[in-house]
Amino acid sequence: MKRLLGWATGLWLCASGMALGSPTKAPTQDLTKLPGTQKALGDDPLATLRTTADGLISSLLSDDRMYPRLVQLCDRFGPRLSGSANLERAIDWILAELVRDGLSTAHGEPVMVPRWVRGKEELRLTSPSEQRLELLGLGGSVATPPDGLSGPVVVVQRFEELTVENARDKIVVFAPPFVSYEASVPFRRVGAIRAAEVGARAALLRSLTPQSLGTPHTGVMLYKDGVPKIPFAAIAPEAADQLLRQQRDGQRIEAKLSLHSQTLPPSPSRNIIVEVKGRERPDEVVLFGCHIDSWDVGQGAHDDAGNCVAAWSALRAVQSLRPRRTIRLVMWTNEENGSAGAKAYAAAHGNDKHVIALEADSGVFRPTGFLFSGDDAALAKVHKVAQLLAPLQASMVGMPGGGADLRPLADRGVPVVGLQVAGERYFVYHHSAADTVDKVDPVELKQVAAALAVFVYGASELW
Amino acid sequence: MKRLLGWATGLWLCASGMALGSPTKAPTQDLTKLPGTQKALGDDPLATLRTTADGLISSLLSDDRMYPRLVQLCDRFGPRLSGSANLERAIDWILAELVRDGLSTAHGEPVMVPRWVRGKEELRLTSPSEQRLELLGLGGSVATPPDGLSGPVVVVQRFEELTVENARDKIVVFAPPFVSYEASVPFRRVGAIRAAEVGARAALLRSLTPQSLGTPHTGVMLYKDGVPKIPFAAIAPEAADQLLRQQRDGQRIEAKLSLHSQTLPPSPSRNIIVEVKGRERPDEVVLFGCHIDSWDVGQGAHDDAGNCVAAWSALRAVQSLRPRRTIRLVMWTNEENGSAGAKAYAAAHGNDKHVIALEADSGVFRPTGFLFSGDDAALAKVHKVAQLLAPLQASMVGMPGGGADLRPLADRGVPVVGLQVAGERYFVYHHSAADTVDKVDPVELKQVAAALAVFVYGASELW
Repeated sequence: MKRLLGWATGLWLCASGMALGSPTKAPTQDLTKLPGTQKALGDDPLATLRTTADGLISSLLSDDRMYPRLVQLCDRFGPRLSGSANLERAIDWILAELVRDGLSTAHGEPVMVPRWVRGKEELRLTSPSEQRLELLGLGGSVATPPDGLSGPVVVVQRFEELTVENARDKIVVFAPPFVSYEASVPFRRVGAIRAAEVGARAALLRSLTPQSLGTPHTGVMLYKDGVPKIPFAAIAPEAADQLLRQQRDGQRIEAKLSLHSQTLPPSPSRNIIVEVKGRERPDEVVLFGCHIDSWDVGQGAHDDAGNCVAAWSALRAVQSLRPRRTIRLVMWTNEENGSAGAKAYAAAHGNDKHVIALEADSGVFRPTGFLFSGDDAALAKVHKVAQLLAPLQASMVGMPGGGADLRPLADRGVPVVGLQVAGERYFVYHHSAADTVDKVDPVELKQVAAALAVFVYGASELW
Repeated sequence: MKRLLGWATGLWLCASGMALGSPTKAPTQDLTKLPGTQKALGDDPLATLRTTADGLISSLLSDDRMYPRLVQLCDRFGPRLSGSANLERAIDWILAELVRDGLSTAHGEPVMVPRWVRGKEELRLTSPSEQRLELLGLGGSVATPPDGLSGPVVVVQRFEELTVENARDKIVVFAPPFVSYEASVPFRRVGAIRAAEVGARAALLRSLTPQSLGTPHTGVMLYKDGVPKIPFAAIAPEAADQLLRQQRDGQRIEAKLSLHSQTLPPSPSRNIIVEVKGRERPDEVVLFGCHIDSWDVGQGAHDDAGNCVAAWSALRAVQSLRPRRTIRLVMWTNEENGSAGAKAYAAAHGNDKHVIALEADSGVFRPTGFLFSGDDAALAKVHKVAQLLAPLQASMVGMPGGGADLRPLADRGVPVVGLQVAGERYFVYHHSAADTVDKVDPVELKQVAAALAVFVYGASELW
């Protein structure tokens, strides 16, 4: 975990001709000469800042390089699970692209990440009828025996329904109705523990999504020392609801589950770190980030490749403005199944003077504002910065907030925010084969970049 | 293929208490005493018919037994592929339910059906990145070698793009954009033939759907004597579009495909036949039908279990009206992969006097009218009958029309119609894991039953 060396404030180079396959020419105008900038330049620093923010928004909303770049990232490297060659190749490419863009401080910092590998998977209902059900093993699940395991099925909608009497030696299906991700995610996190504690042989989860076309959604799950590790997989909501109806109808439900996942030794990955040095307070850091790893299905386009492309476009846009404080972008590795990247960053940089830290990890949709955790003084500053986003209608601030990769910093007292978006469809795609680049709207991608740029630039000036 | 024996006009018994688990009580009123019937009873036969039709609509729109019965059919027996125990158990249950409903002529007529069984399936992209892609082998496809087959991939959007130069020894992906099912379905039907003719080792198809969450859709495909039989599977639209972009980006695309399907000897199934004998012209038959088999994924709820439940509810409703001509309902077997049921019906009953034949096989959505094929005199009669559906706004008639199971009858000169519905979402579910009972709207199910009842009763009176 080497420290950053060789700070350099690069120039904002128009890199459109150099980026691989970028089909459109970038806007090359000097931001200070945009129409919006002209009309309000004066002695009021806030007015100047507002005009600069308007210029940033205008510039990024016309930056047509982002979407082709996101397509390249998704199509060339595929899903980017920790420990995969796909992820490391994607990191190599991003580092090279950042340097091509004139962001010469870009470098990787080594992190050892867990390595869980999905194998062949199959779920068959054998009673009341023969039926193949779609499934996705949950990340970290142990395998079944090589020939699979068979048994009666019991369906529950709440942890309180689980008893040794109804669950011992059974396959437990957790079928909570989807109200919100936050309300349902405990079933995924600790379902295998709770089922094993009452003697279940395996567990299945109704996928955490408000809408489905027979689509299972994966995600991380946990085991607990002293509790047997049982296999755990997600099934489509339609299948879980069917099993629940069958149970209520008094039918005998039996299934056979095969999961051939493996947990291999940890392997090397990297956090990507790139920054623009502050002109007045270079030691004070405005941090923003996203994660470059993804699950192993779909393309991880909304989660979180799109935010990576938006964030690096934002950093490139603010570079030429010579921000007051240092603006640092981190693309964490291993957010999805271990947060090793976040821990490594905090270990290496936890003593840096982070004035504020933002994560964008709620999908790539129209920005609406920020979710914040921190003290009152920081809250007031976040509101001040957020008002610069009025042209995008993205000035709302809620509490609490942050991001998975910001937890170690928040624990050290750094104020944290998460970018909020109009993400009604996020969990329809999230952690599934449906999280593909075609689901990202090119205009919303640019809006996210604009929101990130204004936030970090505004914070670097105003904090 | 035995002939129908023992015709009997059953009584319309209120069977709600007898139907397994039917939770709601059926309307028991005499249709001739409904308010709508009172106001227009008179000497004008068309006015009387219109009032009776209004009564049928009113009665069926308040028949709450249908949806629970559809749930039972879907949940107890699962998908109903030809040759499966699921299908035969479903047929046994429907026959028993029909008799419970007082439709005592219900019986099965034996049909030998093809038996194709899906095995384990896997598709992995190995270049440009490692990626598992969702797939569904197409019905009838041969297996790959036991260890699968690997090769470079070529993507085409039109048959004309296929050449020996670009396709020999490759895995051909057909990726036509989805415009309509009719426009794209030739790729599924003859894709394996066309790919094999230019030396391809296997073929993949962009699933025939306007919308996807990483969802592959199966369906029947064909081979041709003298052309090598190559494996053929459907992939999600997202994956096909990705492969097309990767090809345009100049990337080397390689994949490994494993399909372990089997074609077993034909096995016995049945068409379900049930009728209400005509009071004046019992030898003249108004035929309507649907198909009871389905693909082996999801529950075949829209395709075509819902129409089966709607049609049998319609027949029960018209029974007490003592129709002028015989009204016969057929639930064909093996519509999906062979039409053996339709052929057997035509062989056994082709010489019956079918005055008109209708099939309902476009999903269970709000009815809008009918698609017709036949002579001008029959067309005029269909329009006359369709006008009885004005209260449902389902009076439109288009051409041509019919249904897969009606083809042998149409070939013999019988006028045929297909029920048309507002099926914008039909192909989103069709032949996929998403075709589950939760996708069927209980109100639309009743509307379909009402439209069918009015059509067949009206035709029996007016023809």
